[in-house]
Amino acid sequence: MNATNHQFRLAARPTGLPKRTDWNYTEEPVADPGPGQLIIKILYLSLDPAMRGWMNDARSYIEPVKIGDVMRAGGIGRVVASANPEFAEGDIVSGMLGVQEFATSDGKGLTRIKAEVGGKKVPLPVFISALGMPGLTAYFGLLDVGQAKSGDTVVVSGAAGAVGMVVGQIAKIKGCRVVGIAGGPEKCAYVVKELGFDACIDYKSDDVKKALHQHCPQGVNVYFDNVGGEILDAVLIFLARGARVVICGAISQYCSTTDVKGPSNYLSLLVNGARMEGFVVFHFAARYAEGIRAMATWMAEGKLKSKEDIVEGLETFPETLCKLFSGENFGKLVLKVAD
Amino acid sequence: MNATNHQFRLAARPTGLPKRTDWNYTEEPVADPGPGQLIIKILYLSLDPAMRGWMNDARSYIEPVKIGDVMRAGGIGRVVASANPEFAEGDIVSGMLGVQEFATSDGKGLTRIKAEVGGKKVPLPVFISALGMPGLTAYFGLLDVGQAKSGDTVVVSGAAGAVGMVVGQIAKIKGCRVVGIAGGPEKCAYVVKELGFDACIDYKSDDVKKALHQHCPQGVNVYFDNVGGEILDAVLIFLARGARVVICGAISQYCSTTDVKGPSNYLSLLVNGARMEGFVVFHFAARYAEGIRAMATWMAEGKLKSKEDIVEGLETFPETLCKLFSGENFGKLVLKVAD
Repeated sequence: MNATNHQFRLAARPTGLPKRTDWNYTEEPVADPGPGQLIIKILYLSLDPAMRGWMNDARSYIEPVKIGDVMRAGGIGRVVASANPEFAEGDIVSGMLGVQEFATSDGKGLTRIKAEVGGKKVPLPVFISALGMPGLTAYFGLLDVGQAKSGDTVVVSGAAGAVGMVVGQIAKIKGCRVVGIAGGPEKCAYVVKELGFDACIDYKSDDVKKALHQHCPQGVNVYFDNVGGEILDAVLIFLARGARVVICGAISQYCSTTDVKGPSNYLSLLVNGARMEGFVVFHFAARYAEGIRAMATWMAEGKLKSKEDIVEGLETFPETLCKLFSGENFGKLVLKVAD
Repeated sequence: MNATNHQFRLAARPTGLPKRTDWNYTEEPVADPGPGQLIIKILYLSLDPAMRGWMNDARSYIEPVKIGDVMRAGGIGRVVASANPEFAEGDIVSGMLGVQEFATSDGKGLTRIKAEVGGKKVPLPVFISALGMPGLTAYFGLLDVGQAKSGDTVVVSGAAGAVGMVVGQIAKIKGCRVVGIAGGPEKCAYVVKELGFDACIDYKSDDVKKALHQHCPQGVNVYFDNVGGEILDAVLIFLARGARVVICGAISQYCSTTDVKGPSNYLSLLVNGARMEGFVVFHFAARYAEGIRAMATWMAEGKLKSKEDIVEGLETFPETLCKLFSGENFGKLVLKVAD
């Protein structure tokens, strides 16, 4: 093909916050598809906290990215050449495409996207947001792991992030009282006024313990944790009897250069007969269709909103990714690579 | 009544390890029973790690012991005078009797003890050991909270303590592979040779991580934690997919004068879709009879052994209690108060 592919390839395993020199920005021609292959022009890339973990050389739920490999990332793209009977030129697909402009694929793990819900056109980035992995993470984490049910008080941190926003909205749909935790007045106002949360604690200016005590007078039945660290420890103090703490992430710890801070109030689990349970959305792969169907229905009914924070330009990748760790993103962080 | 009652009354809230001066050793005459009351001569007192927590002025699953009150403790005694139609002189009872020689009771919360199992006489201390709260703690913690099932690899810390010994034996009865963690070669040899554990790690001399890796080649399905701290962190590294970590206690942390050490490897719960769940045996009060029945049956069949570490003399109480925190006790720690 007459096209050039720019790529971010892992150059070094970072300590702490990743920096531009942890990748090499490379360029190579795009080859024609081999038998069974297709070429995808990447439109949007999903930037996720989990990507930081993939850069570490540690045993985890997925292989680390190898030094020299294209950085792993989920994304959405358009098929521009196909020698695979399952996919035609012009198809829109999502999957693990990598931080680059063009991906070569054998079609495995790709999902075809129709870009509509209930007959209405939906912007593509929504399919890597509320109708993609973040939405599925919220759905299975809250309902299966967290066992949230009507009347529960649900607290969610990272409330204005890709997963937290959906967690709070699903919890409201299920009849829970929802208290978010987010950074700054703009995010807090948004999740309360636009998304219908009952309250939101601004961890940058509020006394988090005092605010939790005020907003959760019956204690916390479900805590959906995206952040770890001091906030996890604070919420543990207020667990109700039989509470479920869902460990979805720990963004405050991913770029730590010292040991991860374990939750020193974990004995609250003992006193309250409560549990802390972790998960990775891949554990629910067999049920993705169920989750997407439920969320598309809620979206069509106007009960579920998706919000993306879109930054343009593949070349901004390192700095854009770091917005996640400084808490600068507002909604799902998406890198727009092409139109 | 013509008798004197000696008592340990809480004098101060300790920091760190409790010491003799945290109690006052008092003496008072034993009054005759009022209407509906009975007088119990205490024979054995149960000394438990949880007692340290009851001395703190903190919100927990039970009220703290008040300054000036007789120190709370479970025990076994003989009714020596009764104005309560439910109990007769000579009855043997167990319940919360307090660290003293005589208890006055209205009969609530007392259990009458027959001192036999399957027609055979059983020493009284067994009823505050495998056939008492420690046994019930093991039973519900392992089977209900930990959901141990045949084929699981079960790791238990405090393996030569009152609860740990029973946990390992029940796990063997249920067809699990059982790896204990205990301090010193004598305790380790005992749980393997006498109780049938598959292996026991001596945390005082073994490299715990290396030993866990060796003895749990398929990972750990259930970890029953009595100790917290470094050992909890080590086991978290080896969790199998879907593992259950049962938080029963954290004896390494109870006398800490700094913050409790939270488990820094808790993100292993996320990676492995595992959970950590706490409980207090009182949460299962409605099912005590079921637990005792099961364990009495196993004991009558010779499948379950109870071992007590009996120290004589009420006046030794402060120093005897501290054996728990130094790990000196071997089996259930019991204070013998009278014959």
